[in-house]
Amino acid sequence: MAIPTVRVGVIGAGNVGAALVALLLDPTRRVALEDAATASLEVVAVAVNDPTKPRPGVPAALVTGDAAALAQHGDIDVLVEVAGGLAPAGDLIEAALRRGVSVVTANKALMAQRGTELARLAHAHGADLFYEAAVGGAVPILRALRTSLAGERIERVIGIVNGTTNFILSKMTDGGLDYDAALAEAQERGFAEADPRADVEGFDAAAKVLILASLAFGTELRDETISREGISSVRAFDVDFARKAGYVIKLLAVAQRHGEHGLSRSVYPALVPVDHPLAAVHGAMNAVFVEGTVAGPLMWLGPGAGGGPTATAVLGDILDAARNRVAQRHDVPFLVDDTLERVPAGELSSVYYVSLDVVDQPGVLAAVAGTFARHHVSIQSMEQSGVGEEARLSFVTHHAREADMAATVAELATLEAVDSIGARLRVIDGGA
Amino acid sequence: MAIPTVRVGVIGAGNVGAALVALLLDPTRRVALEDAATASLEVVAVAVNDPTKPRPGVPAALVTGDAAALAQHGDIDVLVEVAGGLAPAGDLIEAALRRGVSVVTANKALMAQRGTELARLAHAHGADLFYEAAVGGAVPILRALRTSLAGERIERVIGIVNGTTNFILSKMTDGGLDYDAALAEAQERGFAEADPRADVEGFDAAAKVLILASLAFGTELRDETISREGISSVRAFDVDFARKAGYVIKLLAVAQRHGEHGLSRSVYPALVPVDHPLAAVHGAMNAVFVEGTVAGPLMWLGPGAGGGPTATAVLGDILDAARNRVAQRHDVPFLVDDTLERVPAGELSSVYYVSLDVVDQPGVLAAVAGTFARHHVSIQSMEQSGVGEEARLSFVTHHAREADMAATVAELATLEAVDSIGARLRVIDGGA
Repeated sequence: MAIPTVRVGVIGAGNVGAALVALLLDPTRRVALEDAATASLEVVAVAVNDPTKPRPGVPAALVTGDAAALAQHGDIDVLVEVAGGLAPAGDLIEAALRRGVSVVTANKALMAQRGTELARLAHAHGADLFYEAAVGGAVPILRALRTSLAGERIERVIGIVNGTTNFILSKMTDGGLDYDAALAEAQERGFAEADPRADVEGFDAAAKVLILASLAFGTELRDETISREGISSVRAFDVDFARKAGYVIKLLAVAQRHGEHGLSRSVYPALVPVDHPLAAVHGAMNAVFVEGTVAGPLMWLGPGAGGGPTATAVLGDILDAARNRVAQRHDVPFLVDDTLERVPAGELSSVYYVSLDVVDQPGVLAAVAGTFARHHVSIQSMEQSGVGEEARLSFVTHHAREADMAATVAELATLEAVDSIGARLRVIDGGA
Repeated sequence: MAIPTVRVGVIGAGNVGAALVALLLDPTRRVALEDAATASLEVVAVAVNDPTKPRPGVPAALVTGDAAALAQHGDIDVLVEVAGGLAPAGDLIEAALRRGVSVVTANKALMAQRGTELARLAHAHGADLFYEAAVGGAVPILRALRTSLAGERIERVIGIVNGTTNFILSKMTDGGLDYDAALAEAQERGFAEADPRADVEGFDAAAKVLILASLAFGTELRDETISREGISSVRAFDVDFARKAGYVIKLLAVAQRHGEHGLSRSVYPALVPVDHPLAAVHGAMNAVFVEGTVAGPLMWLGPGAGGGPTATAVLGDILDAARNRVAQRHDVPFLVDDTLERVPAGELSSVYYVSLDVVDQPGVLAAVAGTFARHHVSIQSMEQSGVGEEARLSFVTHHAREADMAATVAELATLEAVDSIGARLRVIDGGA
């Protein structure tokens, strides 16, 4: 039986692009891909910045230096964008969608900033826009939110969506390293950039939680800033305290419903109970934990980065787009429900862990405890460590408003007996 | 804008059926469901054995006692079968498919036995046959294998797909209970049947691994018997030994490729390293761990049973079937690739843990070790416990053929110094 051909153009031949082209051209996968795509997938061009540079696995005949021409008038059914960056990727994707070419992208920054606008453009021109690889690498969480969980009311989504920070925190937990040593090892092993800020300060995770929230709660993907705390203030002492208390520290991307009309999205390091499934997410792995009203707690886990794994997520999207092309249909983008109000970070409440270094004198604990009390933060437990003239006090609070906790910490910093304030980390409650 | 109506008939109003009908009739979900289904979903009938029995949440006007009439000539687009059992479910599903009605079922036993035949029937009549809820309850693993991983070459699938046995083993691990006490608690809490054999002897998990293998490796779903070991021989001692050695014991459903042309499918309790993601699957939760050639290790986790969670999986399938109805298309069933040869269980190799009770006399270890050696089973480590005239020897082997291990155990049983042979459990290697 003759099957139709779906023509694919690729922009970008880095780790992901090269791995993808290798998958698409692998003769041992041809039958399985044709079966899954209901079409023969033909790679017609691979656009790169420097077409003179040799690309192992990418046939020279396919390489072009003109990405704009490919997007604007290449004879293609599906455009794959795995080059990254806001520009020119955004314009290229827009050009392709405007002429009805379906787009598959791994571009989290672009989707977080312009996702809804581009999805509407795709819909208006009868095309698909898929971006599974933008969150969680190989972990197929976005398709699950779009399909399997489309009928479910989701209460909370918690992601470990940044492999760099999870690697660093895992090294601090299992290897006993301090933050700087763990970061250095991550850099050495290629898990962290020379300038690690996008990862360790939570910018990468923030883009991803915006995308997760859009699918879980129908929020619009437009240029938004959310509450974001990184991991650079987490010390070996905190990791150690957490372990003794039955927790591990993870950088979490959290989107959560509050009552009927409230929604929060934030990124912060938190203490996760050791028997929570998220505590078992080691090294550079990613995971997304979804709490559904009826489905209960669900978790997806897998490699969050890497050329091959990310390419498999892109490939899954290409197969979807190809099937739709053959059936002459496209997926309708998710419903935007912007009735959910953003709950200001200060209004959110959590259990907190706080540690401070104090002068070891009579009356210090009373002064510190009085400060907590004045801001309505109730203490669940306290532990003192250290000897001599210096002591470290580690508190775990009951549920407290973030604004009250911030005011507490601000006042503690003014106390004469307090030398320094260490970590102030949230403690999440048990999952499954 | 007027949207089409998709008419749904339901067979079965037990835990799952009642929860499903409640979801479909919930007015607060109506908009989200219409958006996801691209149609208005109308429940037209709910067939039950005893229509006089009150069913909370199921309007009496919808209840009928005639499932056959609903399947054979009800005015429906989608038939949902959540009654279970091979008969009459099989005939009812067949009747619906023959007239082009799409079918959504949670019936693992039926799908394991007749899945391919029924999928072909569906395809021939332009209908869909979906059965996400048959494996892993709320865990949307089957759709992921059909879609996200359709282009991936899978090496191994390991499932914890039976909540009853996972609850029992978790109780033995965390609560220090022995098998009988843990089973009794599972029965008391409704996690195990009065006759627990289908669960504890691995029959339930065997049906599920057949279904997983069909999607991961293209095997045909026909009536097949596979290698199956239950958990009733696992003792508190084994759980304890495993914990000290850095493992937890789990009942695993394993489907695995061997080279280019080999495939094995089996169910057995095994020692899982504590840092493996499957070790973090606690209580009645289910999980499926997939090792892809390029995607790497992926895991799905969630509640494996319960009316609400299972109903959400059924609902996801109904939404897929409804969207396809509206688009006047259906999903093509997975490709059957029966070139994979079943590797006989005896040919498989694994690391094993074996424990035996022996008379504590000089020369016993030499006799025992000689038996292992005669059957080419090499020993990785040995530990002796117990005092006085009795001793327990616990061995961990290197990789050994199952047939060799079986021969070793058979000969050990004949040794005069061996009082009894306890567990013989596989040890799986680390994952992520």
